[in-house]
Amino acid sequence: METETTNELILQLTPVGVVRSPITTPMLTAGESGLTLNERMDRIKEYHRRVKETVCRLEIFPRWVELLDGIEGFSHILVLYWPHLIDPARRSLKKVHPMGRSDLPLQGIFATCSPARPNPVLVSAVPLVGRKGTLLEVGGLEAVDGSPIIDIKPYSKAYLQVENLRVPAWMAQLHRELEDE
Amino acid sequence: METETTNELILQLTPVGVVRSPITTPMLTAGESGLTLNERMDRIKEYHRRVKETVCRLEIFPRWVELLDGIEGFSHILVLYWPHLIDPARRSLKKVHPMGRSDLPLQGIFATCSPARPNPVLVSAVPLVGRKGTLLEVGGLEAVDGSPIIDIKPYSKAYLQVENLRVPAWMAQLHRELEDE
Repeated sequence: METETTNELILQLTPVGVVRSPITTPMLTAGESGLTLNERMDRIKEYHRRVKETVCRLEIFPRWVELLDGIEGFSHILVLYWPHLIDPARRSLKKVHPMGRSDLPLQGIFATCSPARPNPVLVSAVPLVGRKGTLLEVGGLEAVDGSPIIDIKPYSKAYLQVENLRVPAWMAQLHRELEDE
Repeated sequence: METETTNELILQLTPVGVVRSPITTPMLTAGESGLTLNERMDRIKEYHRRVKETVCRLEIFPRWVELLDGIEGFSHILVLYWPHLIDPARRSLKKVHPMGRSDLPLQGIFATCSPARPNPVLVSAVPLVGRKGTLLEVGGLEAVDGSPIIDIKPYSKAYLQVENLRVPAWMAQLHRELEDE
């Protein structure tokens, strides 16, 4: 009964800012269709390298500027954002090949970082390079230009750091391939 | 113009599950009003210790069960949830004393982990103890019983690990005090 109620609940978010980035195309679009697996991997690696080198701006809407007070004291922040270019129909996807790679086994969406998910709130920890008023400069954020920002949090090790992390073979392989460039 | 549009956008979330926990009261309520600072700190420490020892269940609604396929391969997951006991009026708060501690300087909400924030989506990395069908057992989650679950993600070091973390003095002090128990 209580579960039913919760199941039907609708929770509303309203953007508190917008991402301004030179990156305008999502990664999986960049590595899509008509390419061989190796070509796709090359595109994905190139994209990944570009993201790491990118500094982008988070424009926080003026009405929220006071909420940023003290953020400069953190070397890293957590950015929650909405992947606005994802077709809403893809929120009902159940399984995907990680990074669209057909050589990796199908995984449930909750076991992947796919941006297409029931509630597409993406989370990324990034270095805070600087702040000027309502503008935050951050490094290595994968969000494309125009992504609505949902929340900014300090990077708190109490909530985000873990010990003895173990991941499945497919993710370990992806990390090896992407670090290996 | 584009900023205006984004500013008015409403993004909708629908819970994918619910937290079942022996913890029924939010931490700051536990340490509230009429107590001396030392009494409050003792309550907060006690609460923190209790959270760390708690194993709770994430009940994912049956329609989403396939999305969990493969989650067992991860030692840790990221849980996004909604602090449903927070009064919606508190979403417009601008500044708070961290953990309600008047001895610590006022901070903008985005520089704190306060659950009262414009878009109250809380994020916590926790060990995945086990899975049985739609039920995930996790350790050390601060969410109170009945919290709507918004998303489950694998713990991916690519998005969540940082190097050379630097935090302001107030957060370092809180971490010292809580670890010190």
